[in-house]
Amino acid sequence: MRDGAGNVRSPGVTVYHHMSFLTDYGLEDGFVAACHGVAARIAPEARIIDITHLVQPGDVRRGAAVLAQTIAYLPSAVHVAVVDPGVGTARRAIAVAAGDSILVGPDNGLLSWSIAALGGGKSAVQLTNGDLWLHPVSATFHGRDIFMPVAAHLAAGLDLDRAGEEISVGDLVALPAPTSRMHGGGAEGEVMSVDRFGNVQLSIPAADAGRLGIGIGSPVIVRCGRRQFTVPYLDTFAAGAPGEIVAFTDSAGLISLAINAGDAAEQLGLPPGAHVRISQAHGT
Amino acid sequence: MRDGAGNVRSPGVTVYHHMSFLTDYGLEDGFVAACHGVAARIAPEARIIDITHLVQPGDVRRGAAVLAQTIAYLPSAVHVAVVDPGVGTARRAIAVAAGDSILVGPDNGLLSWSIAALGGGKSAVQLTNGDLWLHPVSATFHGRDIFMPVAAHLAAGLDLDRAGEEISVGDLVALPAPTSRMHGGGAEGEVMSVDRFGNVQLSIPAADAGRLGIGIGSPVIVRCGRRQFTVPYLDTFAAGAPGEIVAFTDSAGLISLAINAGDAAEQLGLPPGAHVRISQAHGT
Amino acid sequence: MRDGAGNVRSPGVTVYHHMSFLTDYGLEDGFVAACHGVAARIAPEARIIDITHLVQPGDVRRGAAVLAQTIAYLPSAVHVAVVDPGVGTARRAIAVAAGDSILVGPDNGLLSWSIAALGGGKSAVQLTNGDLWLHPVSATFHGRDIFMPVAAHLAAGLDLDRAGEEISVGDLVALPAPTSRMHGGGAEGEVMSVDRFGNVQLSIPAADAGRLGIGIGSPVIVRCGRRQFTVPYLDTFAAGAPGEIVAFTDSAGLISLAINAGDAAEQLGLPPGAHVRISQAHGT
Repeated sequence: MRDGAGNVRSPGVTVYHHMSFLTDYGLEDGFVAACHGVAARIAPEARIIDITHLVQPGDVRRGAAVLAQTIAYLPSAVHVAVVDPGVGTARRAIAVAAGDSILVGPDNGLLSWSIAALGGGKSAVQLTNGDLWLHPVSATFHGRDIFMPVAAHLAAGLDLDRAGEEISVGDLVALPAPTSRMHGGGAEGEVMSVDRFGNVQLSIPAADAGRLGIGIGSPVIVRCGRRQFTVPYLDTFAAGAPGEIVAFTDSAGLISLAINAGDAAEQLGLPPGAHVRISQAHGT
Repeated sequence: MRDGAGNVRSPGVTVYHHMSFLTDYGLEDGFVAACHGVAARIAPEARIIDITHLVQPGDVRRGAAVLAQTIAYLPSAVHVAVVDPGVGTARRAIAVAAGDSILVGPDNGLLSWSIAALGGGKSAVQLTNGDLWLHPVSATFHGRDIFMPVAAHLAAGLDLDRAGEEISVGDLVALPAPTSRMHGGGAEGEVMSVDRFGNVQLSIPAADAGRLGIGIGSPVIVRCGRRQFTVPYLDTFAAGAPGEIVAFTDSAGLISLAINAGDAAEQLGLPPGAHVRISQAHGT
Repeated sequence: MRDGAGNVRSPGVTVYHHMSFLTDYGLEDGFVAACHGVAARIAPEARIIDITHLVQPGDVRRGAAVLAQTIAYLPSAVHVAVVDPGVGTARRAIAVAAGDSILVGPDNGLLSWSIAALGGGKSAVQLTNGDLWLHPVSATFHGRDIFMPVAAHLAAGLDLDRAGEEISVGDLVALPAPTSRMHGGGAEGEVMSVDRFGNVQLSIPAADAGRLGIGIGSPVIVRCGRRQFTVPYLDTFAAGAPGEIVAFTDSAGLISLAINAGDAAEQLGLPPGAHVRISQAHGT
């Protein structure tokens, strides 16, 4: 029988109706399509949702952030993510069961935030069953030759423990979580990501604004390095005047900075990783 | 039973086999995929045709033009379009029945040219039925939280009038149509759009060339601002010599300017909105 | 019955479960979607794998290379490729049976390397059956009006010989194969392509390195124009030190040059077509 997401579940076997796919392969070459093709030959009924293929080459942290912020909205699926600057070296290839899904990729932390977002890993294997791979295996394109064929077999109903040797979930490489803390009457964090609109997403949960007594309409002091500016905390960036810097709760539940009809990241000079502190503006 | 486009129609209910999706979300973040995921969970059998997600942020007019020039070639579907600089403000969210399709998006004119292209709106609702939304609804990402879940329910067979309160089709926000008129022995219009090849599409229908006595091979005077140049009207840009400016009837039935193996928009300095006049060249 | 790739084969008719699509249309306009829509109306069950739409406008050779290096990984399908600077001129529109697939596109060499990769053409037709086209046929958008509708009919089970008049496979336009030869104790070739990572793919097969006595760990002399440098031949670019130039066997079985965590094409100034010679470094 099919569940709500269209997956076929019968005793002992789950056939996934969907896969997802995130890489840094870009869209100018045939790399993504080769992987789609490999999947289509093994699991022709599975549909692939492309998350993005424009992660900057090798930027594992960015890939991890996009995947983790998206995965909650995807159906249960076999999620394949490949941002893999260590391809061909000793880093492990893994598949991890979490929530109702399976995540497949390199063991370099790329999957770690998503595993946490799905409630933690339930079991994991190192991809050592070469019978599932595409041979000859290239040294540089494991997305095509290892990750995607294994993932497609899993989508088509293969048991996870057939993909390789079980490893401990606790031993998986995890990226350090983005820092955020309440300190000295303020909330400190870092720039998580910058989106296409130039909106600057901080690692500070919107709930922290509440704890600081910052409500809709309140002025907020934003400090980064030696610079400091006071901006209103609004419902949404569109509530600001054109050109005005505003803080707001973004679609991931985090505090973000934006400029209505402008590019906040560029104008504020706030790249990913930059440290930011926010606090309530008293009587300003 | 399925109709020609694969849609299931039975008395009182239409299940759409296809959806389409156009936004200004870009391809670098997970925004588009989150929307695909939301749709997949509600309507796992619906296929989504991505029109483009590279509309310049907030450029409602460009989004409207791309959608309107594409929609005639799409199967009947639930078409979702989100270029929504006013997200989170008072602008309405709407769904409109037109032709054999339903269009879903913000009521800011984005859908208006497409509704006209499909023969006009038959009925419309304001999306007020919050039971269909994804909660909590973010202030800034209605594509994920309102437009796409409602659209997916409609694709899965929900009646349009269940999505919200009926509103008058005549009250929908409409963008002013691109201007084009015959005047003083010439045809005046504006640059509709510039495509990837640098081809400059004018708002002047090819039929107007005929009315001006301009046929294939005729010289045409093109005037924009103080500049004027004479170009041949050819079957296609490929019929021009390399580097030659030519006028031709483009794939939307409009007069366009191109340079064979070159970028006409750049070389002629003709951005969208620029006013252009064409007329027959007598004896030049 | 369905074969492994999900295609339905019965005596005398093949219904293809998949199509593939490669163009230079870009992703900013609605061109790709219009073609998807045309296919969906004719063959609603066929799935389209987009290979890339970011071939540089009119770069037939680049399109041919991407298609040829990807097609082996795709399921049997109707493959549609349109990089067509001569659209609207006398160049023929063709469909060619090769392997278990059909290739559809302009007869300008774009398909030639892929036909060879699939073992050569088995039969070919010129697309002359206008009943299959979308009317009115534009002069400039044959992807939408000719190639895709014909391809979708073929995917839906139409016999190839119904698409037009048979032509000789030997008469199809073929691009000259990338040059590669062993000469004077070295292997000479050219830059085939540069990928998103800046990796420089040469037309020299990895097997030639073996013939020259170059093994993993060997130093290799790379000469291009007057410049010459010595680099190690490694398993993969990731085995190099950051910033180090390395040679390796890429995922297509060709010798490539890369810089670990860098852009080799940019730093070495090696665009597609540049001539390169490699040889063994003796005692350096």
